[in-house]
Amino acid sequence: MAEYTFFFNPMSRAQIARWALHEAKADYEPVLVEWDNKPQALFRANPMGKLPTLIHHHNGHDHAVSEAAAVCHYLAEMSAPELLPRPEEKADYFRWLFFASGPVEQATTAKAMGWSEGDRQRMVGFGSFDQTMDALDGWLSTHDYVCGDRFTMADVYVGSQVMWGLRFGSMPERASFKAYWDRCSQRPAYQEGSAIDMALMAEMQGSTKTEA
Amino acid sequence: MAEYTFFFNPMSRAQIARWALHEAKADYEPVLVEWDNKPQALFRANPMGKLPTLIHHHNGHDHAVSEAAAVCHYLAEMSAPELLPRPEEKADYFRWLFFASGPVEQATTAKAMGWSEGDRQRMVGFGSFDQTMDALDGWLSTHDYVCGDRFTMADVYVGSQVMWGLRFGSMPERASFKAYWDRCSQRPAYQEGSAIDMALMAEMQGSTKTEA
Repeated sequence: MAEYTFFFNPMSRAQIARWALHEAKADYEPVLVEWDNKPQALFRANPMGKLPTLIHHHNGHDHAVSEAAAVCHYLAEMSAPELLPRPEEKADYFRWLFFASGPVEQATTAKAMGWSEGDRQRMVGFGSFDQTMDALDGWLSTHDYVCGDRFTMADVYVGSQVMWGLRFGSMPERASFKAYWDRCSQRPAYQEGSAIDMALMAEMQGSTKTEA
Repeated sequence: MAEYTFFFNPMSRAQIARWALHEAKADYEPVLVEWDNKPQALFRANPMGKLPTLIHHHNGHDHAVSEAAAVCHYLAEMSAPELLPRPEEKADYFRWLFFASGPVEQATTAKAMGWSEGDRQRMVGFGSFDQTMDALDGWLSTHDYVCGDRFTMADVYVGSQVMWGLRFGSMPERASFKAYWDRCSQRPAYQEGSAIDMALMAEMQGSTKTEA
């Protein structure tokens, strides 16, 4: 049995977890989940049936992890300690990992859904969409990576958020965002994982066309 | 100089960080921030001026941490290793820490703002408000704490989310939520921190009345 079972669909945030799995050089078994036919094993691990969901088979126990940012960090903790932050990097690492999975996720979702914070900015954790983008822009304009000079697992998650934001237009095309993503996309593990997901998507679209 | 500088206002999520500071028995200097007169030192550490913001004075460097969940976890990493998860607890710890700061925060904010996901549940990371509440309810109905039997730093954050949700009506009054908060609220560190914030709020209200 592989060390990790990875429930995914190539057209989902599971792409983020696959990148993390390849950064960690993890031994994993991928289980492709169809949206309208999710397996019971996925619901047992995660009642919401969200993707990605990862099961770690470890010391005779199964440990389920969901939430893309948690999956990334967990893989670093268990299988890629060199991608964990050093003591002096921990403040930046956790600050931006939670900023990207909290305020950035919330601000870009609100924008995509057409939800407006209006004059109630103190009620929402991200303040406003522009403030959130400015904060991330400010950091990435002055730091190559989340922790400064060095790529860490936080960049898999923050980089993915920036990549999806640029690709789907849910984030503005700031120069710092594009330059940061250019740096992150050079990672061999990103390219390996992405090639697998792209090939699967092409195959799925091909089979849809054949059926049609 | 104290080891940590803590920018806070008692009427904010900074209450969560104070509880974490007391769990970690940290040496901290509190700096009370008025909403309409935020100090430059806060903006230098965190351009959004959000509370809580923590500065760790460590080995001759200043490290800024923001995002309440990140502040809690950082304090465990640097000052309270006994509240970090053991290897077999890490999956649960990170999964629910990110679930509470991501989907739960997003679902309760959307509800408070009157935003509806409608039939576009696949576009929002929390699926729906009810699914998010059911997932947390499912876990807390079968586990005393985030990691099972043992209180960890994740409970400071998840417990605070549940407490605020129950207090402000942004979460439903499920039996598991109330029982979990009853357990968490027994922590001496919570009671110490809360007493300080309550006294400050009473003082601020008193001075407002005197001025009026």
